[in-house]
Amino acid sequence: MDQDITLDLQRAARLGFDEAIYCSGKTVGHISRILDQAQDKALPLLLTRLHQTQFTELPEHHRRAIDFEPVSRTGFFGAPRPLQGEPRIAVVTAGTSDVFVSREAARTLRYYGMPNVEITDVGVAGLWRLLARLDEIRHMPVVIVVAGMDAALPTVLGGLYPGALIAVPTSVGYGVASGGQAALHSMLSSCVPGVAVMNIDNGYGAACAALRIVRAFSQQAEAPKKSS
Amino acid sequence: MDQDITLDLQRAARLGFDEAIYCSGKTVGHISRILDQAQDKALPLLLTRLHQTQFTELPEHHRRAIDFEPVSRTGFFGAPRPLQGEPRIAVVTAGTSDVFVSREAARTLRYYGMPNVEITDVGVAGLWRLLARLDEIRHMPVVIVVAGMDAALPTVLGGLYPGALIAVPTSVGYGVASGGQAALHSMLSSCVPGVAVMNIDNGYGAACAALRIVRAFSQQAEAPKKSS
Amino acid sequence: MDQDITLDLQRAARLGFDEAIYCSGKTVGHISRILDQAQDKALPLLLTRLHQTQFTELPEHHRRAIDFEPVSRTGFFGAPRPLQGEPRIAVVTAGTSDVFVSREAARTLRYYGMPNVEITDVGVAGLWRLLARLDEIRHMPVVIVVAGMDAALPTVLGGLYPGALIAVPTSVGYGVASGGQAALHSMLSSCVPGVAVMNIDNGYGAACAALRIVRAFSQQAEAPKKSS
Amino acid sequence: MDQDITLDLQRAARLGFDEAIYCSGKTVGHISRILDQAQDKALPLLLTRLHQTQFTELPEHHRRAIDFEPVSRTGFFGAPRPLQGEPRIAVVTAGTSDVFVSREAARTLRYYGMPNVEITDVGVAGLWRLLARLDEIRHMPVVIVVAGMDAALPTVLGGLYPGALIAVPTSVGYGVASGGQAALHSMLSSCVPGVAVMNIDNGYGAACAALRIVRAFSQQAEAPKKSS
Amino acid sequence: MDQDITLDLQRAARLGFDEAIYCSGKTVGHISRILDQAQDKALPLLLTRLHQTQFTELPEHHRRAIDFEPVSRTGFFGAPRPLQGEPRIAVVTAGTSDVFVSREAARTLRYYGMPNVEITDVGVAGLWRLLARLDEIRHMPVVIVVAGMDAALPTVLGGLYPGALIAVPTSVGYGVASGGQAALHSMLSSCVPGVAVMNIDNGYGAACAALRIVRAFSQQAEAPKKSS
Amino acid sequence: MDQDITLDLQRAARLGFDEAIYCSGKTVGHISRILDQAQDKALPLLLTRLHQTQFTELPEHHRRAIDFEPVSRTGFFGAPRPLQGEPRIAVVTAGTSDVFVSREAARTLRYYGMPNVEITDVGVAGLWRLLARLDEIRHMPVVIVVAGMDAALPTVLGGLYPGALIAVPTSVGYGVASGGQAALHSMLSSCVPGVAVMNIDNGYGAACAALRIVRAFSQQAEAPKKSS
Amino acid sequence: MDQDITLDLQRAARLGFDEAIYCSGKTVGHISRILDQAQDKALPLLLTRLHQTQFTELPEHHRRAIDFEPVSRTGFFGAPRPLQGEPRIAVVTAGTSDVFVSREAARTLRYYGMPNVEITDVGVAGLWRLLARLDEIRHMPVVIVVAGMDAALPTVLGGLYPGALIAVPTSVGYGVASGGQAALHSMLSSCVPGVAVMNIDNGYGAACAALRIVRAFSQQAEAPKKSS
Amino acid sequence: MDQDITLDLQRAARLGFDEAIYCSGKTVGHISRILDQAQDKALPLLLTRLHQTQFTELPEHHRRAIDFEPVSRTGFFGAPRPLQGEPRIAVVTAGTSDVFVSREAARTLRYYGMPNVEITDVGVAGLWRLLARLDEIRHMPVVIVVAGMDAALPTVLGGLYPGALIAVPTSVGYGVASGGQAALHSMLSSCVPGVAVMNIDNGYGAACAALRIVRAFSQQAEAPKKSS
Repeated sequence: MDQDITLDLQRAARLGFDEAIYCSGKTVGHISRILDQAQDKALPLLLTRLHQTQFTELPEHHRRAIDFEPVSRTGFFGAPRPLQGEPRIAVVTAGTSDVFVSREAARTLRYYGMPNVEITDVGVAGLWRLLARLDEIRHMPVVIVVAGMDAALPTVLGGLYPGALIAVPTSVGYGVASGGQAALHSMLSSCVPGVAVMNIDNGYGAACAALRIVRAFSQQAEAPKKSS
Repeated sequence: MDQDITLDLQRAARLGFDEAIYCSGKTVGHISRILDQAQDKALPLLLTRLHQTQFTELPEHHRRAIDFEPVSRTGFFGAPRPLQGEPRIAVVTAGTSDVFVSREAARTLRYYGMPNVEITDVGVAGLWRLLARLDEIRHMPVVIVVAGMDAALPTVLGGLYPGALIAVPTSVGYGVASGGQAALHSMLSSCVPGVAVMNIDNGYGAACAALRIVRAFSQQAEAPKKSS
Repeated sequence: MDQDITLDLQRAARLGFDEAIYCSGKTVGHISRILDQAQDKALPLLLTRLHQTQFTELPEHHRRAIDFEPVSRTGFFGAPRPLQGEPRIAVVTAGTSDVFVSREAARTLRYYGMPNVEITDVGVAGLWRLLARLDEIRHMPVVIVVAGMDAALPTVLGGLYPGALIAVPTSVGYGVASGGQAALHSMLSSCVPGVAVMNIDNGYGAACAALRIVRAFSQQAEAPKKSS
Repeated sequence: MDQDITLDLQRAARLGFDEAIYCSGKTVGHISRILDQAQDKALPLLLTRLHQTQFTELPEHHRRAIDFEPVSRTGFFGAPRPLQGEPRIAVVTAGTSDVFVSREAARTLRYYGMPNVEITDVGVAGLWRLLARLDEIRHMPVVIVVAGMDAALPTVLGGLYPGALIAVPTSVGYGVASGGQAALHSMLSSCVPGVAVMNIDNGYGAACAALRIVRAFSQQAEAPKKSS
Repeated sequence: MDQDITLDLQRAARLGFDEAIYCSGKTVGHISRILDQAQDKALPLLLTRLHQTQFTELPEHHRRAIDFEPVSRTGFFGAPRPLQGEPRIAVVTAGTSDVFVSREAARTLRYYGMPNVEITDVGVAGLWRLLARLDEIRHMPVVIVVAGMDAALPTVLGGLYPGALIAVPTSVGYGVASGGQAALHSMLSSCVPGVAVMNIDNGYGAACAALRIVRAFSQQAEAPKKSS
Repeated sequence: MDQDITLDLQRAARLGFDEAIYCSGKTVGHISRILDQAQDKALPLLLTRLHQTQFTELPEHHRRAIDFEPVSRTGFFGAPRPLQGEPRIAVVTAGTSDVFVSREAARTLRYYGMPNVEITDVGVAGLWRLLARLDEIRHMPVVIVVAGMDAALPTVLGGLYPGALIAVPTSVGYGVASGGQAALHSMLSSCVPGVAVMNIDNGYGAACAALRIVRAFSQQAEAPKKSS
Repeated sequence: MDQDITLDLQRAARLGFDEAIYCSGKTVGHISRILDQAQDKALPLLLTRLHQTQFTELPEHHRRAIDFEPVSRTGFFGAPRPLQGEPRIAVVTAGTSDVFVSREAARTLRYYGMPNVEITDVGVAGLWRLLARLDEIRHMPVVIVVAGMDAALPTVLGGLYPGALIAVPTSVGYGVASGGQAALHSMLSSCVPGVAVMNIDNGYGAACAALRIVRAFSQQAEAPKKSS
Repeated sequence: MDQDITLDLQRAARLGFDEAIYCSGKTVGHISRILDQAQDKALPLLLTRLHQTQFTELPEHHRRAIDFEPVSRTGFFGAPRPLQGEPRIAVVTAGTSDVFVSREAARTLRYYGMPNVEITDVGVAGLWRLLARLDEIRHMPVVIVVAGMDAALPTVLGGLYPGALIAVPTSVGYGVASGGQAALHSMLSSCVPGVAVMNIDNGYGAACAALRIVRAFSQQAEAPKKSS
């Protein structure tokens, strides 16, 4: 299937996003061939949903070339962009079970050189945990908020914080919460105006949405527009 | 269809609940025949989902015999039970659009002589509204909490209040919130332990659940058990 | 039910959003009482989902005080904010049937004094229609894209435009498209990174999300943060 | 991910509930670190959804410190509260396949020192099995009723028993019963007034709801209210 | 559209069922043309889902030729078959709201000359109501049981009655019961072996299933088999 | 969990059905204890959904006592009833993939001594296969028809066969057919009057429904009615 | 909203399809303005889902310019294309209730000058009705098959007919058939290879699919390809 | 279960399709017996959904007789038909993850001797990839288009290409895209007229639909019609 792989080399110029390789469901051989091609062209890659077992079975020279983080199941192939400026994005998480998603968002931001702050375990079942971190959150123009189950966090936060708010439902939970539909629908139905929502477990996409926002209002954003 | 109507006369003795007539979908003629029968037997009735137009089209002697409240769409046919003691149940509502459900709960409690406190419009999108009423709520052993859309209120309240908590989702909203499934699933998935949930818009049932609880721990509750 | 109405007067200070009155399902009497209260306190209000028939049945003095627009079903009660600066938000619509949603977004932006550009009928079934407007769109840091049915527009646009992208599914269509679930799921599953999604038909919310973004990166945004 | 774990130490004081660790989906390493932290602070923990294989793979010193029960998949880390008074809660189960849920409820009650009676295999397909135990059930102010598939038990029981009734659907069954939605919807639609419902398989939550009720009407309940 | 109507004249010979005209959604003109054709050929017809308003708007000569029953919304066009023998089918209904379906079944049986017994309002929320009629029910080889909402009746009855049992869910109820899916799934998931289920509100189909059974074991059933 | 097992010894007398043990999800130890109890009381048992691996892991003395059939995953513990009379039930199957369900029905009938005819692979995609077997089918008063995917077989057969017709959807297929919902809904919506439907994959239940029918019209059926 | 209407004038050249105006949900004023524009440019239009009441309320000069057919709810504005050659497409319908969809397909074909044969009321519940028309059907290279409820017709037909087969589910029916999902899923799951499916009630789309096929294999089809 | 296997030998003559063996869920023993029967009768077979592990476990003489392709999971047992003429079908795929479906379509076409062109990885997130291949695609009278997630490709392609268009949704993706429902609904709701849709992942069926079309307009198609 080698001929099927067409790396999207112009994406960075056009949108400011490198090719991201979604590894779930791909064989180790398939991933390995993609890495070979990227290596030949000296292209950096962001690997998402790369399971520990997939990573472990990669050839050693690929394993060594990847900065792998198991909780988020992300890998950096090639050096990530250098960090630029102060953090402008907070990644806020309701429970520790949601960290696999929020870490994916944080790692994606790191890959693109965007500093960010992770604030974990501030679900509103224990309200004071959120209130204790509110000042820190309110300094950021963009917040990614990650929650599963009843997903009450974006509504409470959205009523206290005036900036850009991107909500990511997670598939955590059982019964009617299973698979994340309850959290997704809760976020889409938020009583607070202006909560924008991503697909279930899509930490990568949330980071990209945050990048689109921050770049659109910074010098960095102008470059890709001109060059495309 | 006269012969189809069998009023459940033993229910009060057995469970402590009178017959409740769910009027939605019933013709005015059908409701009127039920009232005739109840009148003959001097039975009190609680009418639920009695729409204004149904009420208006009832024969005048029935209309005059009913204490009708249009927001909750409830009617008392016959005198309600006398109020007994201090309020032990709070009915807490997220938004003004949910009042048609919370009022149904409050009216049902009133019908059975159970004093209660209505606290409206304390949705967590404006968190301080809830916090301002928290002391009042915490004096009650039982709280009925009514919310639609993302239904974040039961989770926030359930993390601050240790007593019995009965949540009622409402069908308010549009898109994925339409019909109340988002609110129902949010409540069932609450991160807070011990939130018990009713069917969508079932304010009547929530009141009955609260009555079951309060009576089970009071003298009043013993009577029906013995007599059944 | 007068006592149920609690206008959220602090919302503007805290979040920069006035109270918005969702009129669908409210009686004309209920809306009228809200307007009376707002008038007493000299508060401006944004009315959403105000159907033509509701508007027509309002008392004349209220009707005259409202700037009503029937396609979007929005009304401005009180003067909208003065327009500030150049347009930074484009509202892009796939088909003419989706205009009831995109106009709601555009009117909400107008209410808050945010100039914007409406670009209608550029669905990708006729691809050149979008390409012809692309340069215009790319000058905006934020785009709201409104589409129903298969909702292919956000994906095509998101692959050509690097800025912030807020997608709103509409309930237009029949069969599996009916109610907007197909469009919603299509948008959440977009192959393009960073598309953030609102509830079905939620043009108002999309405008608020865009306002959160633009304000977070402008002087105007700092004020509410300090004062809250 | 060590830094992600924040044990909610104030929960006991505020709500009367210790931290419960939901183990499903957590690695053994993650669970082990939580136990280490709890041990350091001499905190008791309730472990739920702890699968036999997870338990078996825990370090020996943790295994020995846990009172593990495999059917309910619960573990007590630290001594449970001493039993107080006579049983006031019955846990009634329709079929033997539902016992994994009812035992979770019973074990949670035991953890908090609340004596209870388990009544198993009284599904209404064999009606006399329920009738034979009815007197025993009716002595309890609170009943937790656990059933899967058509979940007819809460309706039949609710028509015979006047006390507080908490229903828990189970995921037992195949075809349309698979996953527990049929049982959940059946319980929410019960013809009997006042049946309150938990999420599918949520035996832990049902026990907490029962605890909220019993404590709200006993001395024990006052303490947390005062101290929070 | 006259040419579109092709009355299935051989159905009676082949299956023992006349053509049944499902009137919901048909215009009065369309129904009237069907009746004209049937009159020309001296064919009897069973009309189902014939709403009162449709009946009222039919030409007078058609109205007079129809034995109309408004609760079941059925009409006999032409004389029904003469009643044959003792009742062998009971039509048992949970609540008075379900009678529009059970009456449709009873009327269909009457149309085909099959005597039957209607037993109404024996839902298991009041268990003794069913037990009081059990002896009567058990004399019948076939029972049609009609119930909405949680549909517990077929399970309780199926555990007490050994004969053929056909269950019909109804669309009665609100929230998760709305439309009849909860009742349908409850019946399909019954814990009792051998409950066969019809589509929601399909009283006509239930009667036909009962007719198939009774005829298959009687002389009457042999005739159509031979002649087809 | 030994105490949880309560064999329903009166079921045979009351309904004519022995206890059936649904083995899916039960541990081998649990099944083994049930068999021990049955052995002690000399009770015959029907085991359903007994997977090959479960059977293989049973103690040898239990394995030898069970007549196991792997396709249907059924086991007879104790001698089945002697066969009585001529076959009156046909079990008709659309495709070979559906045989795991139809064989379960046939084996259940065999267990109860009811002779039956299996007719396999007559799906209507190849219409002549059904027509070739039609005479054979029409001699039977009861037909169980098993089909997955589009489940067109019951409709075609139901238009050609006047007797009792019990349809069983199967979970065979992928995409929208996956899990059997498409087949279930197709059967419930059949254009042919009088098709009664079972839960997905419920071959056991279909056999019980057929047994209820046949017994209700034979001497054999009277016995349980009298003795209960 | 005049400025929102952009007639797609190049569609005919590019794809061979004129603009089709979907009238459902459009106001009469909106439709009228579209007709004005088309008249100015001497463009023919196909109007779909034009309800009788909408047609009746149009200005008289528009009404007279439209060839309206009420069953299909279609209108030809401007002369349809002249009919070309022999019929190559059959439109086959299961029941008379499905004719509103099949007629829409037939009318769309007529609009584009494609002769076709309508074969109505050949649902497989009466199998011989289909078999009687089979020879006629098999002469056509393309068949559109329209069916609701269980939608067994495409499977039976697809097993007898080797040509191109386009299936259209209809929203006819009640209970689980309501809205057409059962028919849609049945068609997508057909046991017969090569059945292609349209959205529910999409007769217009089915005709366009048939036109795409026939034109791709005829001279007529080459023209648009060259000119675009 | 040997007797259950009935190879449909007349299918080739009637429809022009050989028997296709769907291997998913079949045991290796079952597949092996089918191959034995086919070998005895010198019948060619197309094996679909034959997983690598199933193939590997087949007896060696069967393995050697099969032309197996692992990505599509298809096997040719017996020689495929000789290729005839120029390619008339393009198989166009949105992403590399969808190739398992498009390759199944291409392999099915190859089996029947129908040359075709595979065009991979032209999803519209990178629009120029599609435009670069458009001329090649437009030479084909039939296009099969395979896409998952938001499935925007058929709409964009259908607006540029006038020929026959068969769309296949894939089960690729997570969250709301999981299982392929989002892609299916997107395709059925396409804004472009005349897109015909297959079941999720049904590459085999798409190829058969394309074969039905091409054969219906070629000499090859006439043969089966005459001989059946």
